[in-house]
Amino acid sequence: MRIFIIGTGNVATHLSAALLKARHNIEGVCGRNFSHTEELAKKLNVKPFNSISSIPADADVYMISVSDDSIADVVTQMPDVEGIVAHTAGSVPMSGLARFNRHGVFYPLQSFSKTRTIDMSSVPLCIEGSDSETTDALLALARSLSNDVRPMTTIQRAHLHLAAVFASNFVNSMYAEAENILKESNIPFDIMRELIAETAAKAADMGPTAAQTGPARRGDTRVMSHQMGLMPDRELQKLYSFVSERIQGRYKTTDK
Amino acid sequence: MRIFIIGTGNVATHLSAALLKARHNIEGVCGRNFSHTEELAKKLNVKPFNSISSIPADADVYMISVSDDSIADVVTQMPDVEGIVAHTAGSVPMSGLARFNRHGVFYPLQSFSKTRTIDMSSVPLCIEGSDSETTDALLALARSLSNDVRPMTTIQRAHLHLAAVFASNFVNSMYAEAENILKESNIPFDIMRELIAETAAKAADMGPTAAQTGPARRGDTRVMSHQMGLMPDRELQKLYSFVSERIQGRYKTTDK
Repeated sequence: MRIFIIGTGNVATHLSAALLKARHNIEGVCGRNFSHTEELAKKLNVKPFNSISSIPADADVYMISVSDDSIADVVTQMPDVEGIVAHTAGSVPMSGLARFNRHGVFYPLQSFSKTRTIDMSSVPLCIEGSDSETTDALLALARSLSNDVRPMTTIQRAHLHLAAVFASNFVNSMYAEAENILKESNIPFDIMRELIAETAAKAADMGPTAAQTGPARRGDTRVMSHQMGLMPDRELQKLYSFVSERIQGRYKTTDK
Repeated sequence: MRIFIIGTGNVATHLSAALLKARHNIEGVCGRNFSHTEELAKKLNVKPFNSISSIPADADVYMISVSDDSIADVVTQMPDVEGIVAHTAGSVPMSGLARFNRHGVFYPLQSFSKTRTIDMSSVPLCIEGSDSETTDALLALARSLSNDVRPMTTIQRAHLHLAAVFASNFVNSMYAEAENILKESNIPFDIMRELIAETAAKAADMGPTAAQTGPARRGDTRVMSHQMGLMPDRELQKLYSFVSERIQGRYKTTDK
């Protein structure tokens, strides 16, 4: 397929590399930032564009991979095209692209960074299309990149994106709290590596309900009150109590 | 070394298997629950004991791997021994074993389950001893099991255990929140597998401060208020706001 990339961020970079690897034709890259656009275009060996209104109108798929807030601007400025226009955002409804006859969503569920390699073949690609022909075309495109392709409605994707905030962004915030606590005792964060990996693997294998352990799960009030005393930060104490209560509440109803 | 195991739970099971593998002599196992004790003793091919007062007094090390609350009871009931008495608990001070001349702590930082294999050679073993000779003996024992052995004081271990509650128990609780959110849209939790693994790997490699992403990190109030509307549970909304504020607070001071 002939694909045109709009955006030069983490998702655009990883996605375009995967498309190229799957032997699709990338027609060009368009971005606001001139040097980022040049850089990505060079990497893909395609033409860089800096004005959205001047991009070619003959691609099969236009992939909009820009920040959520900028999607509406891109939509307004794009020329009329007959190809499929898709965005890659978790929390933007498909209807934001309704200006185009054929439109859809191509949402990769992963945390991309420019400095880290991601194997796209195992990234869940969540697909929605304005009509069954468009959906099928986007599903086929997705299947050329990944072994985990799932059709998904806008509301499902919104729930998925919210779940990802908990399972990724908030999880990372818990790691950051741990790092700060360790600093109190001059313990390097790297001591957490194996525990973090096992906790992640265990939840994925057993499901988080079965995998839950710790003082709150056991209702070990002695350890919990001892740990409360170790936190000089009152807000951190509040977080500790709040999450502990969530855990206790979750098992109260299922335990005898 | 001749080692006697007190306890039959997850830590006792994994630790005794690793000790055996490292060619130490296990002298016996003692536990409250007769069938658990029989089972572990059989697995290790050693003698089971059900009364702590009758265990042999000639082992080099007594490893107490029971629940935190039961350690004091075990200490009271144990015969006078000349060997080292150590416990494996994160949040119990070493001083709880002061009845014994030579005592210490042997705390493995990992989440053990009976059904999962753990490679003990990469588990951080955190060691404290009542005197330098005891510390050295426990360090040597630990080094025969793991490549990551760290001397650690009682207060450091308390901080480490608290950090582990955040990085493991609370992280798992965030996974559970994600699982519940996904249920709203009938999305199976397994979709999270790659994201969870990458989030863990990224934090371990880059440190959680650099690895933080998401709406709260970007200050994306549009997405945040949209996501608030997706949560029917008011308590979940509170958790979302609270963790988002922690993230925003963390970057306010470091950003321009």
